[in-house]
Amino acid sequence: MTVSSGQCEFETTSGTDILDVTPDVRAFLEASGISDGVLIVFAPGATAGITTIEFEPGALADFRRTLEMVAPRDQEYEHNRRWGDGNGHSHIRAALVGPSLAVPVLNGRLDLGTWQQIVLCDFDNRTRRRRIRLQAIGE
Amino acid sequence: MTVSSGQCEFETTSGTDILDVTPDVRAFLEASGISDGVLIVFAPGATAGITTIEFEPGALADFRRTLEMVAPRDQEYEHNRRWGDGNGHSHIRAALVGPSLAVPVLNGRLDLGTWQQIVLCDFDNRTRRRRIRLQAIGE
Amino acid sequence: MTVSSGQCEFETTSGTDILDVTPDVRAFLEASGISDGVLIVFAPGATAGITTIEFEPGALADFRRTLEMVAPRDQEYEHNRRWGDGNGHSHIRAALVGPSLAVPVLNGRLDLGTWQQIVLCDFDNRTRRRRIRLQAIGE
Repeated sequence: MTVSSGQCEFETTSGTDILDVTPDVRAFLEASGISDGVLIVFAPGATAGITTIEFEPGALADFRRTLEMVAPRDQEYEHNRRWGDGNGHSHIRAALVGPSLAVPVLNGRLDLGTWQQIVLCDFDNRTRRRRIRLQAIGE
Repeated sequence: MTVSSGQCEFETTSGTDILDVTPDVRAFLEASGISDGVLIVFAPGATAGITTIEFEPGALADFRRTLEMVAPRDQEYEHNRRWGDGNGHSHIRAALVGPSLAVPVLNGRLDLGTWQQIVLCDFDNRTRRRRIRLQAIGE
Repeated sequence: MTVSSGQCEFETTSGTDILDVTPDVRAFLEASGISDGVLIVFAPGATAGITTIEFEPGALADFRRTLEMVAPRDQEYEHNRRWGDGNGHSHIRAALVGPSLAVPVLNGRLDLGTWQQIVLCDFDNRTRRRRIRLQAIGE
């Protein structure tokens, strides 16, 4: 049993940028040499989230619309009133979606569904350089 | 420390079928021989989710109603316009609830609350044969 | 590779009490002696959740407002009709936020963002003594 750590960085745009990080996760897993275990994908940061979705433009647009309904960008936020950075909605979306995902690994492969991709959601209202942490435990 | 893998299959109905998979998870854990560690429950697929809830008809009906408010079945979805499969709402609900759950294992037992059950939520709009992956790491 | 278990208890108030448990998680990690691996934070119970957020009063107030919009306290719930305990909204919020979080550990530290704290959300409608489970796996 070993632990293997890695990270990836991405340039993101403002306005709920959703990135398919599955290829990066797969590349990390292959390099790790771990064939059976669990892989954690984690977004360090209070305005990003990790989940899975079918990565096609329609589903992504729908997901953005739902998040806009649940935590509208132009609503008043106490966070904005205190800090003036205008990303109150980003914090709420991130807390709801959550920053971590645990994916089973079998025979060196992620056990994902056919249409299921791992995505980094950057909810912030400005372009950023985003880092995700990949942590695999297994044998 | 070892890794133990298993899976379970379920026949689901359309319209946010919610299944209590706790007995299956417990049976897997017992067979695994792992007494202390972590057990991952994962739904491979872009239209299903894993969470916990008190598995009684009232809470399940309330959960379905909330999901219907957040991502209504009969709303227009870009996903449906592109793919014509009518399950745009399923993708959104799955992305929000998330496909993975990590449950602590102590002395051979899941550390769940008394009224807390592990559920597979099939959000798809048709009956399916669903698989969940169970992955335990521990000693 | 070892497994280390711990738990913490908190007195909570009613009405979506959100507690910063990061210092407790850090203290547990330090005592565990694990320097690289994964730490699971888990809320045993059907009316609590674990997520991350920037722990400042504005973002917490905004998060509570969003949850009140998604699952209003004073709406009618089937759960309440059956059980009369008035916490139907608590069950829905808990199922949405989810009870578990997996945090990467590197060099003895949680890989959190600067403004990202781990929070226990007690959604119940009465004061409680709440327990969270901490489970670390690593070396």
